[in-house]
Amino acid sequence: MRTYLECIPCFLRQALDASRLVSRDPEVHERVVRETLRLAAEMSFDRSPPAMGQQIHRLLRAVTGNDDPYREAKQWANEQALALLPTLQERVRAADDPFALAARLSIAGNIIDLGCKSEVRKEEITSAIESAMHDSLDADALEAFRSAVESAKDILFLADNAGEIVLDRLLIEQMPMERTTVAVRGRAVINDATIEDAKVAGLTELVRLVDNGSDVPGTILELCSPSFRQLFNEADLVIAKGQGNYETLSDVDHDIFFLFQAKCPVIARDVECEVGQAVLCRGQTRGDNV
Amino acid sequence: MRTYLECIPCFLRQALDASRLVSRDPEVHERVVRETLRLAAEMSFDRSPPAMGQQIHRLLRAVTGNDDPYREAKQWANEQALALLPTLQERVRAADDPFALAARLSIAGNIIDLGCKSEVRKEEITSAIESAMHDSLDADALEAFRSAVESAKDILFLADNAGEIVLDRLLIEQMPMERTTVAVRGRAVINDATIEDAKVAGLTELVRLVDNGSDVPGTILELCSPSFRQLFNEADLVIAKGQGNYETLSDVDHDIFFLFQAKCPVIARDVECEVGQAVLCRGQTRGDNV
Repeated sequence: MRTYLECIPCFLRQALDASRLVSRDPEVHERVVRETLRLAAEMSFDRSPPAMGQQIHRLLRAVTGNDDPYREAKQWANEQALALLPTLQERVRAADDPFALAARLSIAGNIIDLGCKSEVRKEEITSAIESAMHDSLDADALEAFRSAVESAKDILFLADNAGEIVLDRLLIEQMPMERTTVAVRGRAVINDATIEDAKVAGLTELVRLVDNGSDVPGTILELCSPSFRQLFNEADLVIAKGQGNYETLSDVDHDIFFLFQAKCPVIARDVECEVGQAVLCRGQTRGDNV
Repeated sequence: MRTYLECIPCFLRQALDASRLVSRDPEVHERVVRETLRLAAEMSFDRSPPAMGQQIHRLLRAVTGNDDPYREAKQWANEQALALLPTLQERVRAADDPFALAARLSIAGNIIDLGCKSEVRKEEITSAIESAMHDSLDADALEAFRSAVESAKDILFLADNAGEIVLDRLLIEQMPMERTTVAVRGRAVINDATIEDAKVAGLTELVRLVDNGSDVPGTILELCSPSFRQLFNEADLVIAKGQGNYETLSDVDHDIFFLFQAKCPVIARDVECEVGQAVLCRGQTRGDNV
């Protein structure tokens, strides 16, 4: 997905919110905002929004000297999700369609996104989970997803955020885990999950775990490590969580299912849904898509 | 009032909205957004937000080759207000406190502001007027305003937007008109009132009319004409309509009453009110303020 002009004011708002989250120094806030203005003035709008996210968050880390400003926020989100996990695992086990419920709960976890807003409250997580218990996904997309998961020989699951990755475990447990690799970001950026969060989620004992070698809050393939790109190309099914992965991979010609909460009007327009909606959709570049 | 960092994303949104309002060419939209990014990156945040508004709208006029892109919007707003005027004049005449009602209706007219949003609908105008019929202003501020108007020898009334200036007539008719001068912008910027709108409002027959010699959507004194600055300095009471006049004059040491609708959170915080509230307040720099 390209960067729309509506994304520009949002970049500035995000840069300001993030600078205030990681520093109390007004000079830091102003420096980050001014530098974001300069970067945005020159950026190619053919690139996806996470390309700018990468630059903004590199800047924040450089200006604050803090390599992982969202560490506490990530720990908090992981703890919230881990506290909910046993009950949710029980509910999935008892469900009429465990796979469908697990997919919905994994999407609900995508509410824990500090790229779109500067705070996620506990009630927002529980409310998203409560909705996931009752709402349903697009039936055709769900069946295509189920069938793709069943028949795939090599599944690559692209995680998104800390906390969310704990709830992804519900879905991963419903998949052929011996054929599944979970990938996280190569280093800390916003509250995106890294290897540490995957370990906290207990995924090391279930599946193969890799990082993508990049600090983009999404998956820009040419910025990922060669070994990750090889994994991506060899996987016959990619499951991509979150808006950032949708924005960076929606135009890539590969069999990809996107699972996320549509949190901004630009994305909602791009996927033709409402803001706030849980989305399960297949990439648009292949002829055999739903 | 200085430019707060929250104003920066808003400048970009305004530049994008305005470029779409005045042109259908995506290249124009992108050019205006990029140039606004460059201007904002270098601007002094000690200046008030309308200093940037001036730059954005000069840019829009230059890029589109249209000297008055809001001409139709201004005509529409004048027509709406003129249609309402006779009934409102009647209501003011019949009111227990004509001066207070006229002040509230003049403030209600400030809803017609295309700097804050790209469209104002007819229902928003009638709804603001309906609220003005019943709501009340800060009683102390109102009595101070009434008394200042009664005792002033030389009143300078700074108009804000087209349409709004028609409703300002209700208040001007309650003032000592022989001692009142109404000032408008020196040339077209956004939907701000110019001499043409003052004439349409019928003010030429009631008061002395001047323009301020500037294309700032507010009143930055050093950018106004020397003759306007002299009028300003000689007036013992200034009545300033609208957010732009508040933003540019709130720190000026002169007896000024500000009348406007608080339409953004930054202004609302600055004057300590709620967004959407009708505000009547006296400038903060004099010792004898309410």
